[in-house]
Formats: sequence, structure tokens, C-alpha cells
Amino acid sequence: MFLLNGERGHRVDVSDRGFQYGDGVFETLEVDNGKPLFLQAHLTRLALGCRTLGIPEVDSALLSKEACELAEQSGCRSVLKLIVTRGSGGRGYRQPEPIHPTRLLALYPYPDYPESYQGHGIVARFCRQRLAVNPALAGIKHMNRLEQVMARAEWSGDAIQEGLMLDYQDRVVEGTMSNLFLVKQGVLHTPTLAACGINGILRQMVLNFAARYNVNVVENNYSRESILDADELFVTNSVIGVWPIKQLEQQGFECGELTRKVQLWYAAARAAEVSA
Amino acid sequence: MFLLNGERGHRVDVSDRGFQYGDGVFETLEVDNGKPLFLQAHLTRLALGCRTLGIPEVDSALLSKEACELAEQSGCRSVLKLIVTRGSGGRGYRQPEPIHPTRLLALYPYPDYPESYQGHGIVARFCRQRLAVNPALAGIKHMNRLEQVMARAEWSGDAIQEGLMLDYQDRVVEGTMSNLFLVKQGVLHTPTLAACGINGILRQMVLNFAARYNVNVVENNYSRESILDADELFVTNSVIGVWPIKQLEQQGFECGELTRKVQLWYAAARAAEVSA
Repeated sequence: MFLLNGERGHRVDVSDRGFQYGDGVFETLEVDNGKPLFLQAHLTRLALGCRTLGIPEVDSALLSKEACELAEQSGCRSVLKLIVTRGSGGRGYRQPEPIHPTRLLALYPYPDYPESYQGHGIVARFCRQRLAVNPALAGIKHMNRLEQVMARAEWSGDAIQEGLMLDYQDRVVEGTMSNLFLVKQGVLHTPTLAACGINGILRQMVLNFAARYNVNVVENNYSRESILDADELFVTNSVIGVWPIKQLEQQGFECGELTRKVQLWYAAARAAEVSA
Repeated sequence: MFLLNGERGHRVDVSDRGFQYGDGVFETLEVDNGKPLFLQAHLTRLALGCRTLGIPEVDSALLSKEACELAEQSGCRSVLKLIVTRGSGGRGYRQPEPIHPTRLLALYPYPDYPESYQGHGIVARFCRQRLAVNPALAGIKHMNRLEQVMARAEWSGDAIQEGLMLDYQDRVVEGTMSNLFLVKQGVLHTPTLAACGINGILRQMVLNFAARYNVNVVENNYSRESILDADELFVTNSVIGVWPIKQLEQQGFECGELTRKVQLWYAAARAAEVSA
């Protein structure tokens, strides 16, 4: 189900700069009980992305209204994707003047993930495809996603659920679709996103949980070896929630105490959000 | 005028991965006398880009036929853009199986460039926006072009015609829409594209001219200072041809002997191609 600039439709003009250059930003969020979860946080990040790219901000109240209307038509759990692009323009990189952003909302079925991913953990690998260091665009969820596409194409089948990506300076940054956390001696660690990567909404929530419950957090740079040396590993995103990593390459990991705590904190926040 | 998968049309499905992720490649070429110029070279690069991204190759004969048919309907000079994407797919970075590439051909009016750009040269600047170092995707003309969009947004008006972009390691790589050449003591220099940048068709032609006419060529890394220290500077692309730079930041440049030679070589090759 698609809502394109407020109307039912699933065809966008080829002159849209989202199509021509990946010139836009997006959000992906979970819908449950007809409600887009943590919508305000996603709209805030979307607005930040638009500001970073110089795309005029789309009325947040309008996006919120459309997101809720679309989500209401979802009987059960689903996934809502919001896209805002710089709109249509002429040939060439020069921006159109004035800019009329395109907004697209799309509703997809919730993926059929086995319960075991959350319960027992997933199998992950390191990807060959690297993330380019690009501080100007780091953090925001823009539509230039060829690196993730290339990384995700490195494996198929169901034996592996996520690939971890390093940047060209050999630092492990994130998963193809998730943020990464590690636990070392009771301290929660997560890669800094100053150079590249996406600052996930769930990542931000986990950092807030940690602050609230007095868990020490370190944001730093991590080599492949220091990741493999962790006591616990987990990945997060707004659709999957919190998945422990039970195996990375040849190495097994326990789903430890802190990972379980984070899952419980998120489950409680999510339940409160669904029923709010 | 647009030809989308062989049919007149200018609306693409929003599930097309070109729109979702910039997951595709493109070519931009000049049309004159109803003919797409140097089409074969562009189709070769397009095919290389598809191979790099793992997009099944689109029948080159079909693309050629469609390009020529569309170009024939252009009375005078125009610009032809070819796009090939990974086609429609579900949500998420995982590739669709099988992949049915989308092909789009679009005809645009030739830009109204003053004759002086070619005759007397253009004014250029250095952009603040950097190019990320990304060897896996360097050279090909993929559709992740936010860096160029951001760089081109740094100036408006007609006082400046092109912006030169550095990578994050302070090497000058190319213009936002062009490749860069410099002349130092009779030797032709151009930045290497091993780390980032687009390997332009006209760049390749200029390197071939140099080999044929016994001009020494160096491909290397160049700092901002070494660019400003050049005897001559020019930029190239398939639409503009060869533009001397007469001013870069505060510094003036002569349109020297070698730049004029390159212009003449290209003019001759272009004339032969138009009448071939």
C-alpha cells in the first residue's frame, strides 16, 4: 500500500531526484496494533536528514497524519517506510528552484522472522564490502545505499542473518541493516558513527536505557579482533528489535545478561508505546 | 521524451531499487544530427558498471537501438541519459531474485552554454563537500550521487561554472560533473581514479589522444596547491566537451597550447563521429 504525495499511487516521476541520484532520506519503522511505533523519533531524524541535505522540511504533522492513517489499515504487525526526496528537477546535479519535496509512505508485511532470532540469537559474518568514510553524510539515513546493497549481496539463503561492515580504515561500524553493540566486562560498547553509518532510532533508545539504568557506555572504534573478543554481541533496528549474535564467523557467543536486560527494556518501552 | 523499458512513459514503480537505494548506473551523452555520440563507449562503460554492481547485463544491441530511435527524434543537439537499475524488489537491501533490470532512456534539450566557456574558459572553485574514498565503486557511474548534489549546491548563479572536488585525503579528484586535466611543463596530468571519481568517456578519449600524438601523460594524486600551480587546466565531459579553466578561486590561468590541441583533437573526433 503506497501513499505518494498524499494520494494512492506507486509510480513516481523518473525526473524525481530520488530516482536520479538517491537524493533523499528515509525511515523504516514497525507498525503494531495499527500504530507506527516511535513515530516522533523517526520524524525527528527524518527532519535532521532533510536539514543536512538542504531539502525543505516536510510538515511533520502532515507526515504523522499520513503515517497513522496508513498504519491504521494494517490489521496486524507491518513495516512502514517513509521517504522524502528533493522532488523533481531537470537534468544535472544542480538543485531545482524552488524545491518541492516528494513524500512516499509505503506499508509492507512484517517479515516472517523465526522467534529464535530474538530468543537464541542470529549468525553473523563480516562483509567484504566496506563503508566509505564520509563525515558530512554520516548518521543520517539517506538514499545512497549501494554499499549496503553490495554487502547484502555477499550471501544468500537463511544460514546467515546479518553482515557486519567495516569502514576502509578497518573499523567495524554496523550491520548492513542494524547497529551493533558489544558487551565487555559489564560495559556496553557501540561503534562511533562520526565517520559513517546510520544513527538508528533503536540505537539511540538503547543508549538512553543504559543512561537510565546506570550501565556504563563507551562509544569508540573497534577492530574486527576486538569485536570477536566481546563477551556478548547484539544488533538492533526498529523492525527487528534486539537480536543477540550467537555466532560471528567461526566464533560462538553467549546471549548474556546485559543483552537480555536490553531486550526487556525495549520490550517494556515497546509495549508502552503500542498501548499509549 | 522518455522511454521506460521500451515504452513511452515517465513514471517508474516506487519499488524500483533505483529509487529506493540509488541501485543502478547511468550514462549521459551528447546527441547531434540525430545521433548519440560515442554510444558504443558509453554502452561499454554501462555494462562494466552493471557487472561491478552485479546487475544482469541489459542487451547492448537493444539499448543501442532504443538510443538511436530516441535520438533520431531530436532535431538538433540534445542530451541523452541512459539509466539501468536493478529493477523492482521487496523492502530491504537483499536483491530480488531473479533480477529484472529497469532501463530508462531520456532525451533533454542541449544546455544553453555560452560559446565563451569553450573559447575563453570557465571559472571554477574548490568545493567544501568531499568525495568519500571507495575503491570498490570508484570509476563507475552509479546512481549514488549525493556527494555531487551537495557539492553543486554550494554555489548558485552563473559566475561559477564548475566546482572541483577533493577526497577526504585532500587529493583533488574531479569536477562535480567533469574530469580534470592539468598541464605542467608540456606534460598532461590527470588525477588517478583508484579511490573515487568517475572514469569519463571523454577522459578516456583524451588519454588516447595523448598516446596517439605522443604527449606524455601522468596519472597521479594532486593537492590543491599543485592544481593551482599548473600551467593550464581544463575539464571534460561528454556533453560539454573540453572547457579550459580561466580562473580557479582567485587565480587566473591561460588557455594554453596543449588545451587548444586537445580541443582540436576532440573536435575532429566528434565531427568524424557525427558524420560517420
